[in-house]
Amino acid sequence: MQQEYASTLLENAVTELSRLPGIGRKTALRLALHLLRADEHVGVALGEAIINMRKGVKYCSVCHNISETDICPICSSPSRDNTTVCVVESVKDVMIFENTGQFHGLYHVLGGVISPMDGIGPDSLEIDSLVERVASGEIKEVILALSATMEGETTNFYIFRRLAPYSDLKITQLARGVAVGNEIEYVDEITLGRSLMNRTPFADSLKQ
Amino acid sequence: MQQEYASTLLENAVTELSRLPGIGRKTALRLALHLLRADEHVGVALGEAIINMRKGVKYCSVCHNISETDICPICSSPSRDNTTVCVVESVKDVMIFENTGQFHGLYHVLGGVISPMDGIGPDSLEIDSLVERVASGEIKEVILALSATMEGETTNFYIFRRLAPYSDLKITQLARGVAVGNEIEYVDEITLGRSLMNRTPFADSLKQ
Repeated sequence: MQQEYASTLLENAVTELSRLPGIGRKTALRLALHLLRADEHVGVALGEAIINMRKGVKYCSVCHNISETDICPICSSPSRDNTTVCVVESVKDVMIFENTGQFHGLYHVLGGVISPMDGIGPDSLEIDSLVERVASGEIKEVILALSATMEGETTNFYIFRRLAPYSDLKITQLARGVAVGNEIEYVDEITLGRSLMNRTPFADSLKQ
Repeated sequence: MQQEYASTLLENAVTELSRLPGIGRKTALRLALHLLRADEHVGVALGEAIINMRKGVKYCSVCHNISETDICPICSSPSRDNTTVCVVESVKDVMIFENTGQFHGLYHVLGGVISPMDGIGPDSLEIDSLVERVASGEIKEVILALSATMEGETTNFYIFRRLAPYSDLKITQLARGVAVGNEIEYVDEITLGRSLMNRTPFADSLKQ
């Protein structure tokens, strides 16, 4: 049903808010009316933060992570190990790995995974630039850290083949296995099979 | 856990988005990353729509509904019945009544209901201005259209007492009864009792 808005300014704000993922027109109206009730500076600060972000955020020319500078703080940090590159799907995945606190190398953001169903081929992703980084010679290990899905595995394999000519390069992937905290009863068979095949010395777990 | 953001511009946008009701930091991050992936004009249009709405929307000096002009289109329309005023809680309720297409009078937006628990007394609401509108003499009927809650009923009663001196004024309220489409089995007893007490001639329903 066509909603009657008392103001075209309100209607515009509702329309723009409802373009956000997971936000329908009803929620958008609720958010807009909330902003009208709140102090003026709340709404203005929100609007300005979105515009500033959209206009100011760039992408690192090396790893393609978001950055405010041409080369991002991770790529330009002298304390990071620039011989190890972790290949991830998205900007968000960089945040997730950073939050583990377990990785001190650099990243390479592909911008997705190969998915012919969605029309995403290798050329839509930052794979050529990864090969160029490897070709430049500093990198000793590439860690493939893509999702354990069909598309992720396909992309892993494609990158593995593209990097195969660099015989000195170590190419690794994330361990597949039982998630910490999971009960064996509920682990799927493929994961269980893989975790059995890739079993690790128990003594190693005592060191961590 | 403290999230590491690659950009303070992104962090600011996430912080401002997470001030919206029902949007936590995780959802805010998802929305911000969506805006970064989408075309620049999408994010800029959203930001500008919010700022324009917040700076441009005023309140009608007569009915207190939102408006872009001093007197809103409903109050200034010559085709509306200016002898009937529907008293509602909020701007959203005006939209809801307009959508029914059943009301052709004017509105009066209280800005809430009396709720001592939340520190909202009659003085926080647009009740004095309602009494002034009635005192000016044109209004023949005031329809109390507040929520059928304890607070709504209290507010109804307070307004009824304030308007009692105007002996020519008709004061009505929304019919209480079984909602259209509801099964009797699931209607609460108080509603059922009221709907029995206020039963209407069956022939009337045939006219609608």
